[in-house]
Amino acid sequence: MPKTEHWSWYVEQFAPTEQHHHAIANVLFSGRSQYQQIAVIETPIFGKMLVLDGDTQSSARDERVYHESLVHPALAGVSERAEVLILGGGEGATLRETLRCPDVKRCTMVDIDGLVVELSKRYLPEWSEGAFEDPRARVVIGDALAFLSEDRDRYDVIVSDLTEPFPDSPSHTLFNDRVFSMIKARLAPGGTYALQASTASVHNAALHCKMARTLRKHFAFVTSYFTHVPAFDTDWAFLACSDRVDLSALEPAAVDAYCARLRGENFFYDGITHRRLFSLPRYLRRMLAQSGDTF
Amino acid sequence: MPKTEHWSWYVEQFAPTEQHHHAIANVLFSGRSQYQQIAVIETPIFGKMLVLDGDTQSSARDERVYHESLVHPALAGVSERAEVLILGGGEGATLRETLRCPDVKRCTMVDIDGLVVELSKRYLPEWSEGAFEDPRARVVIGDALAFLSEDRDRYDVIVSDLTEPFPDSPSHTLFNDRVFSMIKARLAPGGTYALQASTASVHNAALHCKMARTLRKHFAFVTSYFTHVPAFDTDWAFLACSDRVDLSALEPAAVDAYCARLRGENFFYDGITHRRLFSLPRYLRRMLAQSGDTF
Amino acid sequence: MPKTEHWSWYVEQFAPTEQHHHAIANVLFSGRSQYQQIAVIETPIFGKMLVLDGDTQSSARDERVYHESLVHPALAGVSERAEVLILGGGEGATLRETLRCPDVKRCTMVDIDGLVVELSKRYLPEWSEGAFEDPRARVVIGDALAFLSEDRDRYDVIVSDLTEPFPDSPSHTLFNDRVFSMIKARLAPGGTYALQASTASVHNAALHCKMARTLRKHFAFVTSYFTHVPAFDTDWAFLACSDRVDLSALEPAAVDAYCARLRGENFFYDGITHRRLFSLPRYLRRMLAQSGDTF
Amino acid sequence: MPKTEHWSWYVEQFAPTEQHHHAIANVLFSGRSQYQQIAVIETPIFGKMLVLDGDTQSSARDERVYHESLVHPALAGVSERAEVLILGGGEGATLRETLRCPDVKRCTMVDIDGLVVELSKRYLPEWSEGAFEDPRARVVIGDALAFLSEDRDRYDVIVSDLTEPFPDSPSHTLFNDRVFSMIKARLAPGGTYALQASTASVHNAALHCKMARTLRKHFAFVTSYFTHVPAFDTDWAFLACSDRVDLSALEPAAVDAYCARLRGENFFYDGITHRRLFSLPRYLRRMLAQSGDTF
Repeated sequence: MPKTEHWSWYVEQFAPTEQHHHAIANVLFSGRSQYQQIAVIETPIFGKMLVLDGDTQSSARDERVYHESLVHPALAGVSERAEVLILGGGEGATLRETLRCPDVKRCTMVDIDGLVVELSKRYLPEWSEGAFEDPRARVVIGDALAFLSEDRDRYDVIVSDLTEPFPDSPSHTLFNDRVFSMIKARLAPGGTYALQASTASVHNAALHCKMARTLRKHFAFVTSYFTHVPAFDTDWAFLACSDRVDLSALEPAAVDAYCARLRGENFFYDGITHRRLFSLPRYLRRMLAQSGDTF
Repeated sequence: MPKTEHWSWYVEQFAPTEQHHHAIANVLFSGRSQYQQIAVIETPIFGKMLVLDGDTQSSARDERVYHESLVHPALAGVSERAEVLILGGGEGATLRETLRCPDVKRCTMVDIDGLVVELSKRYLPEWSEGAFEDPRARVVIGDALAFLSEDRDRYDVIVSDLTEPFPDSPSHTLFNDRVFSMIKARLAPGGTYALQASTASVHNAALHCKMARTLRKHFAFVTSYFTHVPAFDTDWAFLACSDRVDLSALEPAAVDAYCARLRGENFFYDGITHRRLFSLPRYLRRMLAQSGDTF
Repeated sequence: MPKTEHWSWYVEQFAPTEQHHHAIANVLFSGRSQYQQIAVIETPIFGKMLVLDGDTQSSARDERVYHESLVHPALAGVSERAEVLILGGGEGATLRETLRCPDVKRCTMVDIDGLVVELSKRYLPEWSEGAFEDPRARVVIGDALAFLSEDRDRYDVIVSDLTEPFPDSPSHTLFNDRVFSMIKARLAPGGTYALQASTASVHNAALHCKMARTLRKHFAFVTSYFTHVPAFDTDWAFLACSDRVDLSALEPAAVDAYCARLRGENFFYDGITHRRLFSLPRYLRRMLAQSGDTF
Repeated sequence: MPKTEHWSWYVEQFAPTEQHHHAIANVLFSGRSQYQQIAVIETPIFGKMLVLDGDTQSSARDERVYHESLVHPALAGVSERAEVLILGGGEGATLRETLRCPDVKRCTMVDIDGLVVELSKRYLPEWSEGAFEDPRARVVIGDALAFLSEDRDRYDVIVSDLTEPFPDSPSHTLFNDRVFSMIKARLAPGGTYALQASTASVHNAALHCKMARTLRKHFAFVTSYFTHVPAFDTDWAFLACSDRVDLSALEPAAVDAYCARLRGENFFYDGITHRRLFSLPRYLRRMLAQSGDTF
């Protein structure tokens, strides 16, 4: 049999009839934690990728697009940034982006899966870039729900970087009114809660809209924004929730002033990119304006 | 052998190591014209799709995202819209979008492949929605280059909806200085030339930037804009070229005023969407600012 | 996006974790009959293929391996060959092989799906090679079960070329004691019933053994034989059932004498091939000797 | 994105248009030696598999079919079996089968890739079943060609279990007249040389026939035999070369007498299976009888 140049493939399935196939150059790790199937692979186009339960979490090539979008709009829009809480985010890149902001005095990160954190330190050091060693970082390996129940601190920004709430996911119990109430209780007055919030593409924005509708019961401003993340093979959406600020109204100049204070340079995000993220296409504004069910 | 629910797949290859697989529900047509391999298929998620030489041209689900982005920014940004020329665009949807504008008095469309036009009329009538029968439409089956050499008319807007200039494509000879000079010669003073211009995603924007650099030799304003088109599985970019107008500076209100005059409703495009399209992320603005080779 | 050389693929699934992918060069037909999904495709290696419900029925490249194996051992082993009945066999190749034997005076073929027969005549004429026009051929479009209930003739050989008895298949009701009794009732004394009988490979011979066990309740000799059919991607098995003759004991010389009388030349089958077909590997002889459930 | 049950796949390519896809349950090892890409994976249907340069070497499910076929016909057909030489065979299963024969006093195995041997001991102990520790085993890590040049011993049976002679394979220089002369020089008078010899299926037997033609220049009897090996997804062929014995004429009873002396039980091979292996179908006997080019 002739030799096969690309012999093993990572197949991500978006629907039973839609798949993306990535040739695998290297398997750095493949195994199971107590919570999920974990793989760290390398592909020629995207470089290293973290895959949990067959679902791409981030890739070397474009993780900055995702993580800058998740973290900075929320931080840019608040005036106090001393205390930040991250739910999930095991790779350490959400932590890295947060700690690039010198106003942050402490960043608490709660992830249930210690093995993801350990493997990320070992195989994906470019993701955390030393953030786990930053004295402002406090890493809690544990259940986000338990943490929220017991914790008594207040946070200026809470960032949720959890996997999607599919039935078998460890995140399944973390998207509902009770949890959102708990999150809000931990938020300082005027604080912002930002979360990754599924896809918002033409053919598949229903889950995102349902998340938005649910959160509107809890916050005065629930703003959608999204960008295409090539490794996810789709437009990826976020929600920024606040009782005080509408992030879509933030001026590019204000964003740029915030960005100027960050350590290092941004790859993706700045004032003009902020305007892109929050200027939603007509079809999505219409869908978000419709009523419907909630979690 | 157990029955296979999805037995035939359309595999689009983006690189030897990256593929997207769409299950085929129906093959409406599969054959060759004098110029290219043509297929009209149906998939569960994207509906009908036109595939030329193994390359998705458009899908029922999101063709409006692509065609509204290709046609309307250019039309919105000019003051005269009486004469429009379309190069390529065999499906008829670029023609449809153009003719939705009541200011357009004549729209000439030149496509080399009469079979694509005939098959689109037969299998994809939702794409042209009767545009081929509009008395303002003039359809020329022929080589765009020959047409440009012989034609003596002037056009307020020229829209290029050609396949990408890969070596075996009928579009291969249509991306170079000589052709761009010919196009400019057919453009009315102050007119705009808009073209689909490859992908502009994080990992693959080099061809787009090369196109932009080449066109800057010909036009005072060469503005990139892009959006994710799910059926193309990537961010899709366009270039708007003009000696008079910088489309990125067009105000949402002006766009909305233009859109209000169109027959029917837009799905994707309006003032806010225009702002999204033309607000480029930081990495792309940087790439576009760099020097490099040209066609 | 670069052009894809092979853009559409036929994926045959053997298990949720095992698939064979054939690049499709041409789709000659794709549609549904009243009974099943039917496709006629062309692949570079196997040539034309008939696919029913996502299941390969035969390919130009190796259909002779399958059809010669299905028809000739049974005919070689009987002394009377005047009347033959074929259940299924819509492509016409089972009919073709049967009518190559000059001793056959009439061959009745009963297939439920007239569309398969019509499409085979149109797109796969090499399969039937004019057999449908042979005056000895009698083609009945109808349900095999209904035919068996009403028919009063006797046949020297009955050949079953039905699709496998999966739950949704039109063949599902045709593998059970009642039907086998009906078949036996139509068989002349000393006649042979030959049927295609699923796969018999190392990892997947259970269904074949169950078929064999079921038929042993009805016939004194139930002999398994098999060969690899590349287009089926597996070893394909058959059962020869008789109250008089054990086909595994047939001498190569006797087979060759039978073959010498056939019109045209065999591609696959002869005396030595017969010995191969009926010399089963040790693991399969052991599995067939074990007891187990029946249909 | 919904969770993907089977997220990574091993794709074996037989031609640019034919692929077999196996879902990977586990990656036990993936890396490169000095000579080749090595992977040990686990699949739900075939169990553990050794893959070299994207080419399946053997699977837990059916390696006995392959290794019994490779080793025992040669041993069954000779009268002296004291000294056996194996070229390649890094997994240790060829060694295991050889040492099951109590007549073998010493078995020398020469494999160039020590990493394959070490990984096989660690991850595939069921393949060697302790054979590497048998005092009769002599394992040489080195180039087969260098070994043949320097060695002065004579062997009753030489078994070649090398990868196929593709341009980039370490086996590429091992299929030619010079090497076959060297092998014959090491063979005791009346000894047998058995080699795995590519596929011999209907659509792809040319390489096998070329190997046979080449070897006929060196040996009086060059006998083809083959069986379907599901993990290889094709019929797999062998050649048995001798100046004294035609293995196709070996009686089943003689084979059974040989097998009765082996330690443990055979899974696949015995007298009747021998008859199957060496009874070639008509098309293959014809192809082998034709003249053509040689190595």
